Amino acid sequence: MGRVTVRRPVLRFAEGTTRRRQDSLAAEEPLELRVDGRALAVTMRTPGHDVELAHGFLLTEGVIGAAADVVTARYCDGVDEEGRNTYNVLDVALAPGVEPPDTGVERNFYTTSSCGVCGKAALDAVKLKTRFSPAADGCVVSPETLTALPDLLRERQRVFSSTGGLHAAGVFTTEGEPLVVREDVGRHNAVDKATGWALLEGRVPLAGSVLMVSGRASFELVQKAAMAGIPVLAAVSAPSSLAAELAEEQGITLVGFLRGSSMNVYTHAERITGC
Amino acid sequence: MGRVTVRRPVLRFAEGTTRRRQDSLAAEEPLELRVDGRALAVTMRTPGHDVELAHGFLLTEGVIGAAADVVTARYCDGVDEEGRNTYNVLDVALAPGVEPPDTGVERNFYTTSSCGVCGKAALDAVKLKTRFSPAADGCVVSPETLTALPDLLRERQRVFSSTGGLHAAGVFTTEGEPLVVREDVGRHNAVDKATGWALLEGRVPLAGSVLMVSGRASFELVQKAAMAGIPVLAAVSAPSSLAAELAEEQGITLVGFLRGSSMNVYTHAERITGC
Repeated sequence: MGRVTVRRPVLRFAEGTTRRRQDSLAAEEPLELRVDGRALAVTMRTPGHDVELAHGFLLTEGVIGAAADVVTARYCDGVDEEGRNTYNVLDVALAPGVEPPDTGVERNFYTTSSCGVCGKAALDAVKLKTRFSPAADGCVVSPETLTALPDLLRERQRVFSSTGGLHAAGVFTTEGEPLVVREDVGRHNAVDKATGWALLEGRVPLAGSVLMVSGRASFELVQKAAMAGIPVLAAVSAPSSLAAELAEEQGITLVGFLRGSSMNVYTHAERITGC
Repeated sequence: MGRVTVRRPVLRFAEGTTRRRQDSLAAEEPLELRVDGRALAVTMRTPGHDVELAHGFLLTEGVIGAAADVVTARYCDGVDEEGRNTYNVLDVALAPGVEPPDTGVERNFYTTSSCGVCGKAALDAVKLKTRFSPAADGCVVSPETLTALPDLLRERQRVFSSTGGLHAAGVFTTEGEPLVVREDVGRHNAVDKATGWALLEGRVPLAGSVLMVSGRASFELVQKAAMAGIPVLAAVSAPSSLAAELAEEQGITLVGFLRGSSMNVYTHAERITGC
């Protein structure tokens, strides 16, 4: 199994002096995801929780919606030149009747040959794919619960504290109870590992939950929340325009710049008490 | 042409009170890149500098190495449902004799059917593709020049200052003179726009230059530096393990945690005076 951190010598330059020391770096390795033996994607990820990552990825793609949609997920038994299993190729076997994914480059978007992709097409693609309805989720969350989440997330980032180099995603209840926290060099992967965990635990759709991410809120992160049935997405940093548009349309509460005791609420503020 | 920022109402919650205001969000739109009419990739990007983005992307892929390798790069004339050009599909026509890219999902990696991808395979893939040799670049840069770069980059981030939501990449001379700074919601895109600019200006390989990025240093960012012939990569945040391994092998000086008057030098410190 791959390592989560890698030790490496580093030259530290500070206050005009340099000294050598050992540093811990966040491990990054490619993972090739295959479905029924066919390559679907290669992602650069931090090794660990790969089966969850695969489930979360396929959930976002709209391929699966429950743990039963996957029969097996196992590493291929290939070895590197030193004879060790690379643990970098994961093959997922889908249950009978589950449609395999499209492997084309536009698989996240509904495109026509003339117009091609646009923001509207991207929104429509999510609408076509999602099997859950976060919009119907009547949960409420207090501002105090939300402003406590960044510290709760950080406390659970075990690898970040040693490397400073990982994104994190956590799923919390609307009371602020952590369900799962995952870290990864890739921000999308951290979310896939968290939602994949939930899928394997039979907790998808994640009704009455908050997805908290350490960075920015992009279109793809809102898409992942929508596909997992998560009604509230909170981010430490800024959202993009398309993230806000998709959250608006999917009925997801989008919170950004969640720092200290303040936050910006971009969409569906009705779930936040006092707003 | 797409907008770089989008205005949106937001509910600002701070000090126990809420108020409505207008906020600027970083624009995010999909861009479909086609080569000779065939879809190669869809990336979520901030509109603008799309032709540079396409050139930088194809440079990283090893498809092109000079501006002359592209005959034309133009938007398809598709329109959205309101009759406006989406400016979200860019078709690149390669010059005669330029080999079109592989569109498979493993295109960044040399894979065998048994072993599949691993870190070593990822390093080998870059070695196979690169046509420049940053290792042979004998340039030197002072610690004072490097520690000044984050502020120089930030000063030139026009959109970040209004949205707080964009990554930035800048190419500087070893004297700290800025050649180009580009911003994007995607960190890879910001680098592609910067190296694509350089390619169009006839400045690739970017000998004697420093690539400065606002975030972390991943494998893919070191790969982009290698493919553009850039000898020094500096990042505000942490590198990953594979980023350091690739920089070591490609002869690139990798600097991380470049903040205030301090930094960590992970590889090839011989280019930094006094180290």
